[in-house]
Amino acid sequence: MCPHANGDSNLANPSEMVAIDLSNGSSSGKVNGVNGHTNGVNGHVNGASKPAEQRRNPYAPRASDFLNNISNFKIIESTLREGEQFANAFFDTKTKISIAKALDAFGVEYLELTSPAASEQSRRDCEAICKLGLKAKILTHIRCHMDDARIAVETGVDGVDVVIGTSSFLREFSHGKDMAYITKTAIEVIEFVKSKGIEVRFSTEDSLRSDLVDLLSIYQTVDKIGVNRVGIADTVGCANPRQIYDLVRTLRGVVRCDIELHLHNDTGMAIANAYTALEAGATHIDTSVLGIGERVGITPLGGLIACLYAANPEYVKSKYNLPMLREIENLVAEAVEVNVPFMNPITGYCAFTHKAGIHAKAILNNPSTYEILKPEDFGLTRYVSIGHRLTGWNAVKSRVEQLGLKLTDAEIKDATAKIKELADVRTQSMDDVDSLLRVYHSGIQSGELAVGQKEALDRLLRKHREGAMDSRDSSASRPSSPVPTAA
Amino acid sequence: MCPHANGDSNLANPSEMVAIDLSNGSSSGKVNGVNGHTNGVNGHVNGASKPAEQRRNPYAPRASDFLNNISNFKIIESTLREGEQFANAFFDTKTKISIAKALDAFGVEYLELTSPAASEQSRRDCEAICKLGLKAKILTHIRCHMDDARIAVETGVDGVDVVIGTSSFLREFSHGKDMAYITKTAIEVIEFVKSKGIEVRFSTEDSLRSDLVDLLSIYQTVDKIGVNRVGIADTVGCANPRQIYDLVRTLRGVVRCDIELHLHNDTGMAIANAYTALEAGATHIDTSVLGIGERVGITPLGGLIACLYAANPEYVKSKYNLPMLREIENLVAEAVEVNVPFMNPITGYCAFTHKAGIHAKAILNNPSTYEILKPEDFGLTRYVSIGHRLTGWNAVKSRVEQLGLKLTDAEIKDATAKIKELADVRTQSMDDVDSLLRVYHSGIQSGELAVGQKEALDRLLRKHREGAMDSRDSSASRPSSPVPTAA
Repeated sequence: MCPHANGDSNLANPSEMVAIDLSNGSSSGKVNGVNGHTNGVNGHVNGASKPAEQRRNPYAPRASDFLNNISNFKIIESTLREGEQFANAFFDTKTKISIAKALDAFGVEYLELTSPAASEQSRRDCEAICKLGLKAKILTHIRCHMDDARIAVETGVDGVDVVIGTSSFLREFSHGKDMAYITKTAIEVIEFVKSKGIEVRFSTEDSLRSDLVDLLSIYQTVDKIGVNRVGIADTVGCANPRQIYDLVRTLRGVVRCDIELHLHNDTGMAIANAYTALEAGATHIDTSVLGIGERVGITPLGGLIACLYAANPEYVKSKYNLPMLREIENLVAEAVEVNVPFMNPITGYCAFTHKAGIHAKAILNNPSTYEILKPEDFGLTRYVSIGHRLTGWNAVKSRVEQLGLKLTDAEIKDATAKIKELADVRTQSMDDVDSLLRVYHSGIQSGELAVGQKEALDRLLRKHREGAMDSRDSSASRPSSPVPTAA
Repeated sequence: MCPHANGDSNLANPSEMVAIDLSNGSSSGKVNGVNGHTNGVNGHVNGASKPAEQRRNPYAPRASDFLNNISNFKIIESTLREGEQFANAFFDTKTKISIAKALDAFGVEYLELTSPAASEQSRRDCEAICKLGLKAKILTHIRCHMDDARIAVETGVDGVDVVIGTSSFLREFSHGKDMAYITKTAIEVIEFVKSKGIEVRFSTEDSLRSDLVDLLSIYQTVDKIGVNRVGIADTVGCANPRQIYDLVRTLRGVVRCDIELHLHNDTGMAIANAYTALEAGATHIDTSVLGIGERVGITPLGGLIACLYAANPEYVKSKYNLPMLREIENLVAEAVEVNVPFMNPITGYCAFTHKAGIHAKAILNNPSTYEILKPEDFGLTRYVSIGHRLTGWNAVKSRVEQLGLKLTDAEIKDATAKIKELADVRTQSMDDVDSLLRVYHSGIQSGELAVGQKEALDRLLRKHREGAMDSRDSSASRPSSPVPTAA
């Protein structure tokens, strides 16, 4: 039923596909943490130093938009906090450490861990990860409460992420506190964490259903007392991109500190919401591997990488070890017992497989025609599928050339018509297509076949199939191992 | 490895979850095609007639935005065209018909089919679907070429979707035609299709990498000769929401006809791009079930429904038979041999499962705190997971009440601490949690236990486990069938 394990291949049946040669090598250079955010109004740093021509891409940020942080952001990777809230997640210490190390090697700037107040083991795991000596800064995520803050600062973390619900919904149905109380507690917790010399972020929860004036008021207050970041959280996962843009842009004018976004994905807009938040001046985005978290989770790491790479490939390549992405996704998928979704950006099943005839033709001429992501930058390969009824003769021609056969365009078109006819009954494997092309070619060579001679082609194909069966029958009596055995 | 089949349950292990009673019934009323688009500048029709208070939702379209079509759109369902370009797709006639009927029953306004010029079977299938007498209009999708157009109009379709590449990439590497030639051919094909009395749409391909002036010029030309819709296609899947908004809004001022968007999902932004396109005045969105299509596909039907439902639940409920969504997704997933992604909006694995303690508490008080989608509107159920270390005492309290046990808050907090302790070692099943709560309760009743007596609780739990084992041993000699057998 499900042909793709999380494992080694992103293809159901590579035998149905033509692999395209990628000659311009792979990128492996990883430079981490080039663009330092300072705790203040964000300065633009363009990491890439490519010629202007190559960077002139219709998807790139508008040059005139000075708030835009598409090429100046940091990732707060929350697989070990938000991800632990995924229904299937149960991370033991060993798994947590291997995920933390992999994300650190990938190059994320921050790792966020479950509150040490959640359970005894959570506290011990937090301490263990702090002691690993990773390049990524370690954060833990706590309720806005002095009890939790006191436990958090003792674990050795580089920073504490504080959260409290400010929406009327959460104030009524969750904690029951009013804004004056929330503000007072926030100040107390922030000053306490700061007194320990570590970073502190203050986030509201369900920010988009909070009163805008309440929201701006508390953010301004905590900014004045020196919080490092304020966080906006779309806790219910229903914000839309222009709404996020407007809110972040408004907030950018109110606070001087960094701005973090935590975006749930209930309506499938969490990647786009992160993107527009960065356009509006946000500085930090929360992600988890494959997006795992409460319900359908949050902005997935891979999806965020995909859209930011599309906007500025050089910058993203300079910050992160992109070929590691698939391995990290497989690691987490295995830990929480899910499949990598078939339509996952970059690493999905067929993300680089081209099928329709007109697509295949253009891709073979120039991959940029239908691809904005270069598979080789992610350690992956491009495929063109040709054994189906939507195939086109240009894709077939490319295969004919790969097989070293000599056929005219008219002959290739004729052979393509036969492939389409057969594929109308069932999809043809690459072996089927190759056999047909070889039979067609030898028919032309021997003079037994010419363009348009359908019956002659059918006869040759039948003869070939019978021959193949005969040789299979006779081979049955021979040892099946291709390795010679000692006498 | 993968606990969720495409099948009957959206839960890995329902025994670990508390099902929440949904008492306000299910919605099944389906009214299709209420909001008719006329071929002209779009008028706003608000399908919903709910009290204003209920519609005042921070995610709803801004009232003042007169271009906004979030509550006035149509779906062009392209599973049987774009979806057939998915690497795994091979739809036989029977499968195509069952998908077409299911989508029609769901209520989509249009079905788009593979070009009858693609293969002989494609033509026959197109004719067969036209003869089904569905409510949905049937379209077929062809290259901008008279040969294809002549075949298409003979199939019985209600309309023809014409497409041609206008980007410099496609003009150079695909068809090699210039804009004058493209315009001339477009006019010829459009006038021919119109002469047959059926709908015609003209779309560019790779629209976002086309020259804006070329684009607006050709759209204006075809609008003047009476095309029904113009289409914008993000063929490479890398547009971002604000860019789409700007382009659609510009186009809205240039043409009077309807505007359709076809959005690939390579960077995971296709749902959001569709949403902002509607905000900017687009009228039709292309979807496929689960988003299947070339590479990672296009805007998924379910995801689009999720974000539009979040914006205006009553309007979306009035147009579509929402409880059918899961069945349609399962039908297509099975046909193309993929799993429904675990993080799929609405129907994903755990889309309505709540885990973290603070979430569970609020959800139990009022589901709207953490849910913008009502599971009952989609024929689904909400779950709160409690047997894990992030659990909270409010969620446990709800379970205590469901079990009909009487415990004080202090006792419930004490029992919760024990659940967290056990769950630090391994996730507890619902049975485990229930047993613990029953043992705790009987200990309190008998006076053998009081709050904070950890050793007494451990002793009682040990005794319970041994008793359970004994009864399992002794039951082994009894017949295992619960049905009495005849003597």
